[in-house]
Amino acid sequence: MGVLVTAASRGVGFNVARELLKRNARVVLSSHNDENLQRAMEELAGFGEVCAVKADLRRSGGLENLLGRSWELLGGVDALVWNAPNVSCEPCLIHEASYQDWLESAKIHSVAPGYLTGLLVRRWLETGRKGVLVYLNSVSIKEPMSPLLLADTTRAGLIQLAKGLSRAYGREGIRAYSVLLGSFDTPGARENLKKVAGTRGEPFEKIWEREVLGRTPLHRTGRWNELGSLIAFLLSDQAEYMLGSTVVVDGAMTRAVFL
Amino acid sequence: MGVLVTAASRGVGFNVARELLKRNARVVLSSHNDENLQRAMEELAGFGEVCAVKADLRRSGGLENLLGRSWELLGGVDALVWNAPNVSCEPCLIHEASYQDWLESAKIHSVAPGYLTGLLVRRWLETGRKGVLVYLNSVSIKEPMSPLLLADTTRAGLIQLAKGLSRAYGREGIRAYSVLLGSFDTPGARENLKKVAGTRGEPFEKIWEREVLGRTPLHRTGRWNELGSLIAFLLSDQAEYMLGSTVVVDGAMTRAVFL
Amino acid sequence: MGVLVTAASRGVGFNVARELLKRNARVVLSSHNDENLQRAMEELAGFGEVCAVKADLRRSGGLENLLGRSWELLGGVDALVWNAPNVSCEPCLIHEASYQDWLESAKIHSVAPGYLTGLLVRRWLETGRKGVLVYLNSVSIKEPMSPLLLADTTRAGLIQLAKGLSRAYGREGIRAYSVLLGSFDTPGARENLKKVAGTRGEPFEKIWEREVLGRTPLHRTGRWNELGSLIAFLLSDQAEYMLGSTVVVDGAMTRAVFL
Amino acid sequence: MGVLVTAASRGVGFNVARELLKRNARVVLSSHNDENLQRAMEELAGFGEVCAVKADLRRSGGLENLLGRSWELLGGVDALVWNAPNVSCEPCLIHEASYQDWLESAKIHSVAPGYLTGLLVRRWLETGRKGVLVYLNSVSIKEPMSPLLLADTTRAGLIQLAKGLSRAYGREGIRAYSVLLGSFDTPGARENLKKVAGTRGEPFEKIWEREVLGRTPLHRTGRWNELGSLIAFLLSDQAEYMLGSTVVVDGAMTRAVFL
Repeated sequence: MGVLVTAASRGVGFNVARELLKRNARVVLSSHNDENLQRAMEELAGFGEVCAVKADLRRSGGLENLLGRSWELLGGVDALVWNAPNVSCEPCLIHEASYQDWLESAKIHSVAPGYLTGLLVRRWLETGRKGVLVYLNSVSIKEPMSPLLLADTTRAGLIQLAKGLSRAYGREGIRAYSVLLGSFDTPGARENLKKVAGTRGEPFEKIWEREVLGRTPLHRTGRWNELGSLIAFLLSDQAEYMLGSTVVVDGAMTRAVFL
Repeated sequence: MGVLVTAASRGVGFNVARELLKRNARVVLSSHNDENLQRAMEELAGFGEVCAVKADLRRSGGLENLLGRSWELLGGVDALVWNAPNVSCEPCLIHEASYQDWLESAKIHSVAPGYLTGLLVRRWLETGRKGVLVYLNSVSIKEPMSPLLLADTTRAGLIQLAKGLSRAYGREGIRAYSVLLGSFDTPGARENLKKVAGTRGEPFEKIWEREVLGRTPLHRTGRWNELGSLIAFLLSDQAEYMLGSTVVVDGAMTRAVFL
Repeated sequence: MGVLVTAASRGVGFNVARELLKRNARVVLSSHNDENLQRAMEELAGFGEVCAVKADLRRSGGLENLLGRSWELLGGVDALVWNAPNVSCEPCLIHEASYQDWLESAKIHSVAPGYLTGLLVRRWLETGRKGVLVYLNSVSIKEPMSPLLLADTTRAGLIQLAKGLSRAYGREGIRAYSVLLGSFDTPGARENLKKVAGTRGEPFEKIWEREVLGRTPLHRTGRWNELGSLIAFLLSDQAEYMLGSTVVVDGAMTRAVFL
Repeated sequence: MGVLVTAASRGVGFNVARELLKRNARVVLSSHNDENLQRAMEELAGFGEVCAVKADLRRSGGLENLLGRSWELLGGVDALVWNAPNVSCEPCLIHEASYQDWLESAKIHSVAPGYLTGLLVRRWLETGRKGVLVYLNSVSIKEPMSPLLLADTTRAGLIQLAKGLSRAYGREGIRAYSVLLGSFDTPGARENLKKVAGTRGEPFEKIWEREVLGRTPLHRTGRWNELGSLIAFLLSDQAEYMLGSTVVVDGAMTRAVFL
């Protein structure tokens, strides 16, 4: 199975790519950062068949080229695992955000996955292939947080996209899923919390303990193996009848029911 | 109370503006269409104190000017009733949408309300004023529809925006609400359905009967008086403790519970 | 308008009854506690036309008698505001609850409102009258809490009941709503928290500050006037098109969006 | 792994039991119907280690005995897959339901799973064992249907139970999940639809086509293999971080997003 994983040079995307390689997927990594992409390729080379495509997700041409190159490299894309890069202003508060901040957030979190999805669906319809879309997202769209409000506002609708797509194109063998992540231990998560720690003058480890570990009864972050198994399950035929659904992997960090 | 209503030259925005005027609000209408704006002003002049500001919601400067002018005209804006214009490609299917379609949808449905909100919040914080935000939205974000999937994907996050804002700025007297509309009888709704009727070769009245009236047990569209009363209620102090909430006005058209 | 309010001898039910009387409704109070009912009658006598019916909501005959008597006293019931009494074991933990605890919780929170609703609907259908049902419920069904899990499990479905009823009987003029309450200052809420305070050896006022006031950005409990205005709005014709919906009045205490 | 499956003599429970046996679980089947239970045992004997316990889920003693016997037979219960039998009055309408109908529905759908859960949790806490709870439920709690309103009202809260339990007992290694099923081809589903067909004087196959197959883009019912794989996944360690979550397996039959 040929899978395109976006924002895959580090953090969630990188780890998901590795887990899929371990489970015998062939993977194209994408990132806008050449250096990180190179390092990711080196680290993953031993795990299976992996390629890289440099891509700027904020540009029309970047998305079109990403799809074209991935299609060539994989001999047809069977699945997209959408992971978004961070919005550069975040963490930032609504009343401080500029128009450009909003536009960047919308491009990264709505326009890019939306348009890339459209390109893929068109290809799948033209070639008569089936395809799977997995949108990685954050449980913060369920319980929005002040410093992530631009991201939460712009990425929330991927839930609707996955459902709508599945209902519109399910009979053509195209299915989509949302996966909402709680806390996973990534460089980005640590950097964000370090900024918060700096602002508040509190030690990082104390905030990590209270606001990451302490929010889930399991008192730990999610494991890549867990996330990898879930995504592999969603990509498999076994999950066909779950099309359109949202799966939460957050260690019960969120207090709220999802219904 | 001075209220800014966007996309108010016809349809939902126009009718909401009239209902608020009837209930003694002072209103600024905005629209990008000079002619419609002029006609709306004439029709509403008898209902109370009303002004108009021409604004292109898809541009940074358009939003900044809209806020600045409205603030002047009203002597401070007490409330924003956000209503969005239609996205030009809609109804359109995902696999046919261009990058520009997605970008337009994101600008109209996320970036514009997000940035305008930020401008308003900043003003309210600077001047120590209280303020209310009401985001008009569609129940189709609950039950997304194929031909509206760009809109549904990009406007869904206004729910998160209203909640996050209320939690972040509630102590400063700033509160926000989402109102999800079912079927109201607007020129836009009729035009959309006429396109569908044309495509299917079915008479418009039959589709209106089945897919609009027939979907609610009340067998009617919503009344402007009903929507006006609800919004007036949300703008009033009586609704302060409801801050952050979502209110559905759809004649029970949606099958699903909202929890 | 003739309104039956259950569990109305004190707390939420009592205060809602008073607010409705102030707004010119004629009200029947019910409670299983004679003494409290008598006191409530005395306190409310000055506010308008009020009667009382003693009723054990956990018994079939108690519900039938309540409806019959209320119908007589009011000359037909126009609306039911369902409020539930506390379950006697609560606060209690799942692994400590007996079969009787579960049965009591189910009787109070599901069977009683369900059967009473059925009796009312039958009467309304027989007499060709319209009718409104408002189910008062708690936001803890959104964010369930360990010591209230019996209640939350058994009362959660009132959301489905309101939606299903509205869709099934809406064309007959029967409409239902759910209202989810956050923190209101009632004797019951204070008693529960005092138990918690006792268990933890922490002063009551400190817990009240942190776990009641501190959880909402408004830093206050809801006002009866706010709740009364909302319920009066839902009972009015203005809210007809909102049938089946859920309204949240919690001071944005819940972190989660309701969609 | 020793798993107790309730209402397992036919339909969903039976098929789930078989799928778990195929995946090497040891299974206790329960049912109140001796004859069906005997037949199920015979059909499943070839698939692995399976036992049966006759149990009346509507009685305290029935539940206690079920747990005690299952614990003995399995040498400790590792997991419960809760499946509910049908409520005898259904399909039935609210205004026709008796008190006994409501009570039966509440006993089967709330009291039985609630109390059985409590008994299990207590055992797990006493013995220091981990445990998993999977509540099978229906997507009709998302989009409630008139003839199933008693069931939907009383079983909806299992979502809250799964979440609340996971947050309360997660650190003790106890985790719970909800699985919402769309259309699966069971004798019960066919019987219900035959009743509807009889009432309407429409051929069964036509209704099955339109209201079962026609409601999902896949135009088919769910496969037992799909459901079995999902439940096996949830029971495995791989799903630990998903504790408290709700998984939907409905072929995108529901129009609504789950958030």
